[in-house]
Amino acid sequence: MQFCKDLDYENFRNLLVVIEFDGSNYHGWQVQENALTVQGVLNDVLKKILSQDVEIKGCSRTDAGVHAENYCFSAKIKSKISCHSLILALNRNLPPDISAKKCVEVDKNFHARYSCIAKEYVYKIWNHRYRSAFLSKKALHYWYDLDIDLLNEVAENFIGKYDFSAFCTKNNCQQKDKVREIKKIEIKKFGNMVEIFMTADGFLYNMARIITGTFLKVAQKKIKPSQIKEIIYSKDRKNAGDTVPAYGLYLHRVFYKNVL
Amino acid sequence: MQFCKDLDYENFRNLLVVIEFDGSNYHGWQVQENALTVQGVLNDVLKKILSQDVEIKGCSRTDAGVHAENYCFSAKIKSKISCHSLILALNRNLPPDISAKKCVEVDKNFHARYSCIAKEYVYKIWNHRYRSAFLSKKALHYWYDLDIDLLNEVAENFIGKYDFSAFCTKNNCQQKDKVREIKKIEIKKFGNMVEIFMTADGFLYNMARIITGTFLKVAQKKIKPSQIKEIIYSKDRKNAGDTVPAYGLYLHRVFYKNVL
Repeated sequence: MQFCKDLDYENFRNLLVVIEFDGSNYHGWQVQENALTVQGVLNDVLKKILSQDVEIKGCSRTDAGVHAENYCFSAKIKSKISCHSLILALNRNLPPDISAKKCVEVDKNFHARYSCIAKEYVYKIWNHRYRSAFLSKKALHYWYDLDIDLLNEVAENFIGKYDFSAFCTKNNCQQKDKVREIKKIEIKKFGNMVEIFMTADGFLYNMARIITGTFLKVAQKKIKPSQIKEIIYSKDRKNAGDTVPAYGLYLHRVFYKNVL
Repeated sequence: MQFCKDLDYENFRNLLVVIEFDGSNYHGWQVQENALTVQGVLNDVLKKILSQDVEIKGCSRTDAGVHAENYCFSAKIKSKISCHSLILALNRNLPPDISAKKCVEVDKNFHARYSCIAKEYVYKIWNHRYRSAFLSKKALHYWYDLDIDLLNEVAENFIGKYDFSAFCTKNNCQQKDKVREIKKIEIKKFGNMVEIFMTADGFLYNMARIITGTFLKVAQKKIKPSQIKEIIYSKDRKNAGDTVPAYGLYLHRVFYKNVL
């Protein structure tokens, strides 16, 4: 095991850890009683590795079944373990559907959630006549043709700072301020997989999934491209598309200032 | 439901069906008592769809955990169901980890196994420092650098018609004739995934996995590229590389004359 030098071990160190998880078997990120969660598993594994309780702060909640390619959490620890050794220890002790990818020492005031300046989600759609045996809980199966150019044109209408109440599940939308800035939406096709990349300074509850559902409604000609702005201004959830299933959604990237 | 026209329904029809399966939860293709197998599931589902017992012939056995992107089986049925309707019915009734991709009417003498002229397997290696949460039973995790150009040079030594006894698990190698013709081996890299494509007129028991293990031994400099031919000529299993795990192996393509 390697140790970091020149550290004041009297005080805690603050680490930012990047993990990947297949959310299929988890009730989301956040610790819950009587439910398997990613944070719950990490709490147990870090306690085992470091022989101490570690308080970890996730970059966001995620719904049951949502995946993450680069989820970030910060952890204040009192241990000399090097970042490299911590990743190795995590990968030895975590279950196969969670893996550690990166670890960096960060400022003591850093907080994975509050220091975050933007997040990028990707929604994956298996766009083929027949479903895939390898993607049952990894992508939405959608069999009608998707016009990628059209969807990218439609995407332009979402860009900007708006009250996105129409794209927030009503009963669970506890965020008071519904104004978010969507910085970028881009739709790409890799073989039969259509991926909708969405970057914003923050996402309301189910926002990424409702935006995706709205794209599908446009593809089905049930919503006109020109109506997107009207739907945003209406602030009425009823006007937007359906909330597509959680299992197609991936937290793709988390942005911080001067870190990562 | 659509029906095929101009068929002699008094006699059976012979269908070739292409499926995809994630082998993680199966004890291979072939029906076994008290074990979940892909063939067992298909027997049950076809019986349910067609209300008759259907004898299906697979293109090959596969080991527990091995996957297939294009597995072929032939089935003699007495039913008017169209190929298109059969695929839809299969996809509605099969579990999420098996899907139907294609169905064509074939000659009555066609047999998925005996009519096969070649098969292509691919072995997938996640070649990255850290394991992936999405690939635990889908690819071998190998963290040392792999030199793709070197491996492609080494591959040339396998091409040709030889007695491949050195690449057959001894105790289970029931095939009497150990001569097989390897037509092509190609190693490709997609991002961090290294894929070894192997085409032969047939494969001995564990042959694709032992060839892959031999490539890894070359990468580790434990076997010299020039030794491959000696290993083949030795016909001695001890000289080849290890048998890599089943879960990295995919039946990629099956070749027939004038079909597919």
